Amino acid sequence: MRRLFLQEVATRDGFQNEARFIDTADKVALIDQLSVCGFAKIEVTSFTSPKAITALRDAEAVMHGIRRNPAVEYTVLVPNVRGAERALACNIDEANLVMSVSEPHNRSNLRMSREQSFAQLREVFSVIGGQGPVAINVSLSTVFGCPMQGDVPVGEVLHWVERFAELGARGVTLCDTTGMAYPSQVEALSRAVRERFPALQLTLHFHNTRGMALANALAAIDAGIDRFDASLGGLGGCPYAPGASGNVCTEDLLHMLQLMGFDTGVDLDRVLALAAQLPGLIGHDVPSQVLKAGKRLDLHPIPAHVATLEKQVANTLELRP
Amino acid sequence: MRRLFLQEVATRDGFQNEARFIDTADKVALIDQLSVCGFAKIEVTSFTSPKAITALRDAEAVMHGIRRNPAVEYTVLVPNVRGAERALACNIDEANLVMSVSEPHNRSNLRMSREQSFAQLREVFSVIGGQGPVAINVSLSTVFGCPMQGDVPVGEVLHWVERFAELGARGVTLCDTTGMAYPSQVEALSRAVRERFPALQLTLHFHNTRGMALANALAAIDAGIDRFDASLGGLGGCPYAPGASGNVCTEDLLHMLQLMGFDTGVDLDRVLALAAQLPGLIGHDVPSQVLKAGKRLDLHPIPAHVATLEKQVANTLELRP
Repeated sequence: MRRLFLQEVATRDGFQNEARFIDTADKVALIDQLSVCGFAKIEVTSFTSPKAITALRDAEAVMHGIRRNPAVEYTVLVPNVRGAERALACNIDEANLVMSVSEPHNRSNLRMSREQSFAQLREVFSVIGGQGPVAINVSLSTVFGCPMQGDVPVGEVLHWVERFAELGARGVTLCDTTGMAYPSQVEALSRAVRERFPALQLTLHFHNTRGMALANALAAIDAGIDRFDASLGGLGGCPYAPGASGNVCTEDLLHMLQLMGFDTGVDLDRVLALAAQLPGLIGHDVPSQVLKAGKRLDLHPIPAHVATLEKQVANTLELRP
Repeated sequence: MRRLFLQEVATRDGFQNEARFIDTADKVALIDQLSVCGFAKIEVTSFTSPKAITALRDAEAVMHGIRRNPAVEYTVLVPNVRGAERALACNIDEANLVMSVSEPHNRSNLRMSREQSFAQLREVFSVIGGQGPVAINVSLSTVFGCPMQGDVPVGEVLHWVERFAELGARGVTLCDTTGMAYPSQVEALSRAVRERFPALQLTLHFHNTRGMALANALAAIDAGIDRFDASLGGLGGCPYAPGASGNVCTEDLLHMLQLMGFDTGVDLDRVLALAAQLPGLIGHDVPSQVLKAGKRLDLHPIPAHVATLEKQVANTLELRP
């Protein structure tokens, strides 16, 4: 059984997009329950400015409140040196840095050029690099396409992976930020990055915006990828397409991988029980499909008219042996 | 470029499930527009009893009203001899017969045993076989699992395919009636049926109930399948899971296949324009993803603040050369 690693991002990438503030105690309770599901990594929160992203203004309180499971890596989003200092004070396992490989998307999302982002993140590397055993991952946005620029050349993606690998990143995440990836492209880019940077911990981060997230995950697995971000309930929308699906849904991905015999180490029933709590927590429905339809072998009772028919057939058989 | 064949089923499998009666003229207009999109086959309507399925009580009027494109095969659902006679009077190209390979599902859905269904469909074969060049396809329900019985043995599926192949069916459709199929299973069953019945026209019919429809389609393609049912807008729900997705959405499937370089012969823009008409026609939203999010390269304008930033950067560069 091939081992895959799932990384839960709902409490950062999902909650960040919620209009309603989720109480700190509720965040802590959810993360504590996620911690015993079998995820390899949990992206807990973000150390962006509390004024910029008020939904995650309680980053310190959450990090200090959770019960850490030694089998899980706790990662947080770190945008700059100030965020790195705050995160290090919370004893993080990993800092997740973000920039976009598309110039207009980086300017739109982070309000600076890619070179300005790189310079800022290089400072973060120097701060964290000096602090001991905290790993750095870099999430590269829009590697499968940019909603403003369109296609992003593979060479551009490799260029930015290389620059962060040279800085000493342990891992890189290839992010399909707005759901533009398609399976053959995923397979090709995954192979290209793996071949050139075999030592990097490579993660794929899919969005289901155009329905292809599960197909893309299988294409990545075919290319040797073994690590995926996913979001409980599919939390975390796409700002460019109101009403469209966002992050690939943890339970939908897990359900498929488990049926196919992959060993994820994650307990689907526990995950589904947590996903079922989400609508109450956030105040709206979630795009999860398995939550609505149930697992493949959650069976339904035979309808009454069929039971009656069975009886009739039995009677008929009795009458005409 | 590998050629694939898409078969549109929304006006039968979709409309059949709608509470609102779609006017005959609207059905005819939609089918006429679908006829110039490039589909290999269109499942127009059903010749079930007008009292049993009132949504399709206008089957004759629809069949007589449409403008037939010689490049398209027009198929209809035929449940019994009476339906076959009505359908033949409408000059159909193909009759699509349905039964379930699961005993409880067949009893639940068709209110008779599988043997009773087979006997009834054998009569249909004898009626249609004598009438000339009308092909027969048999859609086998629940071949990837039954919501009451659970797993369905591959041997059972092969048994029923064989019995209909012996009767002279041109084609068989493997239907994932309630979205229980998963990719590795799809690949294995597709290969098994193709190897044993290489002369049969084999169609795969997926539901997206648990999010796996597109992944399943790719698995089928890997196994050599080249023909798929799909439903405009994803019309056609799952009675066992209220709120869950139903039939795989034509435009979502087509969008992915086109990106991957498959030749479907279908015009995605025309299909999207038709899908956009559906909510007005049926009175509710549809589960289509590409309709909401747009095609992969439908780009978005660069936001105003980024344009301002560009200007600021330009000014800064002017000030500090």
